[in-house]
Amino acid sequence: MDKNSVGIVKTQYFECCQPPQELKLKGGQRLGPITVAYETYGNLNNQKSNAILIFHALSGDAHAAGWHEEAKNPGWWDGMIGPGKAFDTNKYFVICANVLGSCKGSTGPASINPKTGKPYGLSFPVVTIEDMVDVQKLLIDHLGIKKLLSTAGGSMGGLLALKWSVLYPETTASVITIATNHRHTAQQIALHEVCRQAIMSDPDWQGGDYYGKSIPARGLALSRMIGHITYMSEKSMDEKFGRKLIGKEKVGYDFTQDFEVENYLKYRGDSFVQRFDANSYLYLTKTLDYFDLAEEGDLVSTFRNVTANFLVISFSSDWLYPSYQSTELVRALKANDIDVSNIEINTNYGHDSFLVEIEGQSKLISHFLTRLEKKHL
Amino acid sequence: MDKNSVGIVKTQYFECCQPPQELKLKGGQRLGPITVAYETYGNLNNQKSNAILIFHALSGDAHAAGWHEEAKNPGWWDGMIGPGKAFDTNKYFVICANVLGSCKGSTGPASINPKTGKPYGLSFPVVTIEDMVDVQKLLIDHLGIKKLLSTAGGSMGGLLALKWSVLYPETTASVITIATNHRHTAQQIALHEVCRQAIMSDPDWQGGDYYGKSIPARGLALSRMIGHITYMSEKSMDEKFGRKLIGKEKVGYDFTQDFEVENYLKYRGDSFVQRFDANSYLYLTKTLDYFDLAEEGDLVSTFRNVTANFLVISFSSDWLYPSYQSTELVRALKANDIDVSNIEINTNYGHDSFLVEIEGQSKLISHFLTRLEKKHL
Repeated sequence: MDKNSVGIVKTQYFECCQPPQELKLKGGQRLGPITVAYETYGNLNNQKSNAILIFHALSGDAHAAGWHEEAKNPGWWDGMIGPGKAFDTNKYFVICANVLGSCKGSTGPASINPKTGKPYGLSFPVVTIEDMVDVQKLLIDHLGIKKLLSTAGGSMGGLLALKWSVLYPETTASVITIATNHRHTAQQIALHEVCRQAIMSDPDWQGGDYYGKSIPARGLALSRMIGHITYMSEKSMDEKFGRKLIGKEKVGYDFTQDFEVENYLKYRGDSFVQRFDANSYLYLTKTLDYFDLAEEGDLVSTFRNVTANFLVISFSSDWLYPSYQSTELVRALKANDIDVSNIEINTNYGHDSFLVEIEGQSKLISHFLTRLEKKHL
Repeated sequence: MDKNSVGIVKTQYFECCQPPQELKLKGGQRLGPITVAYETYGNLNNQKSNAILIFHALSGDAHAAGWHEEAKNPGWWDGMIGPGKAFDTNKYFVICANVLGSCKGSTGPASINPKTGKPYGLSFPVVTIEDMVDVQKLLIDHLGIKKLLSTAGGSMGGLLALKWSVLYPETTASVITIATNHRHTAQQIALHEVCRQAIMSDPDWQGGDYYGKSIPARGLALSRMIGHITYMSEKSMDEKFGRKLIGKEKVGYDFTQDFEVENYLKYRGDSFVQRFDANSYLYLTKTLDYFDLAEEGDLVSTFRNVTANFLVISFSSDWLYPSYQSTELVRALKANDIDVSNIEINTNYGHDSFLVEIEGQSKLISHFLTRLEKKHL
């Protein structure tokens, strides 16, 4: 544990939407009760004006920083959150909640449906980014916070930050989006669809009704392998693996894994199966594909009521959410006279940069937040 | 059938490597007898100096041009081969053979092993690009051709053209490589590995022993879906599909296919299952990954005995075989004082450009071949 760690942390649970106060979902159905797993780091000030809400990505969770008791690794954004770090817990109260539909403590398809006493499986409704935001708004209300200093998220997290800014414009002073866009393109949908087909083609998936039986491990692992390729860049893969063989001098001319990159993907796929639910993966990818921030009109007018300052970060080697997609956001924000800083960080790490490119992001985010403090703290 | 078609054509079969004259494979094993499916278009001149050998890509076949009796579509490169076309059959004798290891008429894992009377399945040896080239050299010998006017191929076909130029430098006056490279990078290997895992994770694959039983249709279809994404560009996918829905005004919030791009991939996956053998897909992708033109040293010295003229074509939007990989080839060729023309065609079609971008390729190839004729015809 480094000296700038937030230390040992525990996930907390917020219960809401008890019937008959179920959450009304965008798809028309009602859902409740809902559990929201969340963590907080730092202290909320007396004015409750120093809170920052972090949104995680597709396979992320509420454990963004610090260490769980006896864990081998810290939270997923530990390099960014802590005393003296980009999200400086000496100054800010940082919150991160697991999204609705996930499997990391918040209610999702693997949760028990109180009406049947069995896991929801595919009877869980398809939730949207809007529904996820609505649930986290209930958490923020519960914590007594009227206005956030900032909302921030990379990849899927960026979609939540964008949607929050449009749904609840008066509740955040700023928005930080990283490696994201305002709606999925055909290629992004296509990549998700093959991931879904990988899971649904696994006979063990059984229409989503596999809880307590064999899980669709092969399908989920395959799905994650595909994902991993899209998270890296051609260059970072080549630098990390090239054509290196596993414990061999020459290729073997057979079908066992020969190349290190094959082994790495297999390892990442298999370890994902230990930590994520296949149905949640299906639901969350669908949620991302359905998301269209400008569904009610054009992107410029979508931002018409937004007053928050924006920091829009993208990465030069990210081919999954290429920089031009961030530029589209910036153009629409500027057309509304919104204060927006837009930076493309030059890096080889591809889409994964939002998780690993700590130094460049930290500088930008520290600077952006310090500028805001003067107005809002 | 357009007026510049080569008309109705028939696939022919060349039998070779009858025991005890089996082909000695690079992997050490011996294979025979071997059948080579091939087609020819145009007429061989008296000097036998006007022959061009075309190499097909991963899922291609010997049927490059013209029409089979009662077929709905012409050969895969019909736009490029015919009277007055890039490979002008009024002037040239064009040959295309199905590669060893495929399932389109030449010997491969789905062929009957004469020793057992059953399909080879995984007992088929892993063949290399070198082995494929050796077999096609036997065909060219059989046709009585001492020196080809040109060899040409896109994607995997480009690897065969490169290997031919190094293995049999005196037997071709020129080489045309399109959208290819001299060895696979980690990303290319990774993408193939997920395709292979998709097939091998399908319980119907049964270790490759599925002939006469249920074929691994889901795995093979999934594998092809992944492939298709890599053959297109982000832009061409967006232009073709965008976020268009299938027969709906709004998204359905369920797991059926909603977006046209999902349906298209499903269709391409399912139709591939009708026309290709899963084991051949495994073998050919492995063959591609193992290929390393410079395995015996550096790329520059690999070309030291090559005298052929080169035309190296790449496409601006091809992210599977990016243009910089063609540039690497060109640099090594030039270091050997080889006459090489290098053109990147500006197009949105991605890797598929070598199949669909007919106009630009035709101009370059016609010009290149006309220049050669003066010396060699």
